[in-house]
Amino acid sequence: MAILERRDTGRVARLILNSPGNLNALSDEMIAALQAEFDALRQDSGIRAVILSGAGKVFCAGHDLKQMTAGRQAEDGGRAGFSDLFDRCSRMMLSIRALPQPVIAQVHGIATAAGCQLVASCDLAIAAHGTRFGVNGVNIGLFCSTPMVALSRNIPAKQAFEMLTTGAFIEADRAAELGLINRAVAPEDLDAATSDLADKLAGKLGVAVKIGKSAFYDQLQMPIEAAYDHARDVMVENMLYRDTAEGIAAFIEKRLPDWQD
Amino acid sequence: MAILERRDTGRVARLILNSPGNLNALSDEMIAALQAEFDALRQDSGIRAVILSGAGKVFCAGHDLKQMTAGRQAEDGGRAGFSDLFDRCSRMMLSIRALPQPVIAQVHGIATAAGCQLVASCDLAIAAHGTRFGVNGVNIGLFCSTPMVALSRNIPAKQAFEMLTTGAFIEADRAAELGLINRAVAPEDLDAATSDLADKLAGKLGVAVKIGKSAFYDQLQMPIEAAYDHARDVMVENMLYRDTAEGIAAFIEKRLPDWQD
Amino acid sequence: MAILERRDTGRVARLILNSPGNLNALSDEMIAALQAEFDALRQDSGIRAVILSGAGKVFCAGHDLKQMTAGRQAEDGGRAGFSDLFDRCSRMMLSIRALPQPVIAQVHGIATAAGCQLVASCDLAIAAHGTRFGVNGVNIGLFCSTPMVALSRNIPAKQAFEMLTTGAFIEADRAAELGLINRAVAPEDLDAATSDLADKLAGKLGVAVKIGKSAFYDQLQMPIEAAYDHARDVMVENMLYRDTAEGIAAFIEKRLPDWQD
Repeated sequence: MAILERRDTGRVARLILNSPGNLNALSDEMIAALQAEFDALRQDSGIRAVILSGAGKVFCAGHDLKQMTAGRQAEDGGRAGFSDLFDRCSRMMLSIRALPQPVIAQVHGIATAAGCQLVASCDLAIAAHGTRFGVNGVNIGLFCSTPMVALSRNIPAKQAFEMLTTGAFIEADRAAELGLINRAVAPEDLDAATSDLADKLAGKLGVAVKIGKSAFYDQLQMPIEAAYDHARDVMVENMLYRDTAEGIAAFIEKRLPDWQD
Repeated sequence: MAILERRDTGRVARLILNSPGNLNALSDEMIAALQAEFDALRQDSGIRAVILSGAGKVFCAGHDLKQMTAGRQAEDGGRAGFSDLFDRCSRMMLSIRALPQPVIAQVHGIATAAGCQLVASCDLAIAAHGTRFGVNGVNIGLFCSTPMVALSRNIPAKQAFEMLTTGAFIEADRAAELGLINRAVAPEDLDAATSDLADKLAGKLGVAVKIGKSAFYDQLQMPIEAAYDHARDVMVENMLYRDTAEGIAAFIEKRLPDWQD
Repeated sequence: MAILERRDTGRVARLILNSPGNLNALSDEMIAALQAEFDALRQDSGIRAVILSGAGKVFCAGHDLKQMTAGRQAEDGGRAGFSDLFDRCSRMMLSIRALPQPVIAQVHGIATAAGCQLVASCDLAIAAHGTRFGVNGVNIGLFCSTPMVALSRNIPAKQAFEMLTTGAFIEADRAAELGLINRAVAPEDLDAATSDLADKLAGKLGVAVKIGKSAFYDQLQMPIEAAYDHARDVMVENMLYRDTAEGIAAFIEKRLPDWQD
């Protein structure tokens, strides 16, 4: 069975981390498999929303520490290998933002270290009540520096700092309060909750979601004046799409749009 | 009756979107009227706080889609016109930040798309319980890219992303939790709540509020070291105002200040 | 008795603002004493966490207004002196971020103006229920511009703006909701809460916390791609520490690490 499964249902792709034996660790193989699927999805105009979940008891427990430890045997003590690993991992995380489709993390059990980063890197996240989130590398002497990049762009500074320096876990309800996830639901409702959200997203005009998602992250990093200039250009393009003209006309005429999308 | 009414009470100006027939849409005329009032207020040292509210059943439902659709008749399909529209609209929104006076959004009914952006663009906002907020352009194929600029500077990333891509509405209590508004009050208390807040602001030393408001948005976009340098300069100027010297002296001497302000 | 006391317990240093007569005001002397201790702690590899608290009824009520007023007697009306004061104060605040050790604010009574800034500037904060926070300089005509720099990097924009322009206080529970502090506890539990947190931090690998804290603030101000590049470099260095190798090995072997740290 593949380390990463993909199951498409209509316009929604589900990616399932499928390595329960090591808690769906982000091994070299898992990072490569995720990158390959993201690269494929990027070109796949038939898919409009992506769900990322984990098989077994947990969502993802972070990097594969045994594999990383083996890397210390290199002549340089692992320096080049670790640098390459974190580069590949960061590139994979950034690929989620770069996808045209929204990506929803479906989280259960635990999401720790780079697993927590994976949640933070998705556009949206829903977790089962009781799920525990942590950036606990500090407990073994390895500060979660790369997970911090994504985490600190989701939750307030003091709360991020506490998680990073204490290694303490937070539960799903708290994660929702802080902004790390969109909401927590009963475990038995988790599958349906992410499917419903994905279906809702897949029903929107794909090209509008695509340019909107891209603009979302671009403008966030700009001064507000530049952000408005960028958003204006995006919105003008959006207005000129045939399907947008039809969507607006249908709204005015109180009928359903006839989209070619 | 004017499309935008202004009623001054003492040092507080109330601007009332007054086009209930089209849900106070931000038509060309409404944008121009708001811009004109903001330009006037900018020079009006007698006004110390501004309230922005809407007449009729809702605060503001966003752009005027019929007017925009008519713009498609231009030779370029509307490109130049749309670009100009979003420029005028963004400039109007940014004028709120640039005003010397704090601006309070008084929100009831619904605030959608550019109407939600208007709330996000004000310095402060109070809404009636039950008010619904949304950036729901995506539902008709027009992603709310310019509203996103203001919204994503008010609320956490994942929550903003969800609102933008699903078009789902949130209610006033949730808007307060997320930071989009300052608080929600009972509908019958809404007028009094914004008036009380405006009166409180109008009772402060105007020049201190003016330089403080300006510095607030300037420093937010700077690295922290530059932000401190800027805030230092602002604070030195503030210390040298006659009325500030008097305010501090009065505080030390436990008496009311005798401000010329 | 010193204006600023330091009491070390194991690897934890407690700094106690000890000028209850003027509500632990940030006078020239207090700023200098804090700067001196931070400079000393920066070199003190034996200390792994710092607690900052206040003696008497309150944590800190901000600048020393009487001392500032005396500065108006200078030939330039105080301009140069005020500029120097805010520079020294900002440098002291930034020194907290620059320390290798996490700094926890232990807050009771009130934390106003630069006292509230002190809380916002610490990496972590715990307050007693009932503690009141405010940036209330606006009430005497002196907008809290420098405190704003720290505050607005802790809490959402509209909430920060309201505090700054109204001078209104918020209580500890609200401060926790907004992100200004990590949590509120019963007054009788406050000492134990900060001690427990400091002990927990002091038990981590010091060098990992040190590079992590530094990277936290550095990456926060970068575009996300640059943030990842920086975090990668930090994490590679971290992986190559002898104690980190031991920490990871111990985790894999399910034993306690034998750290030289």
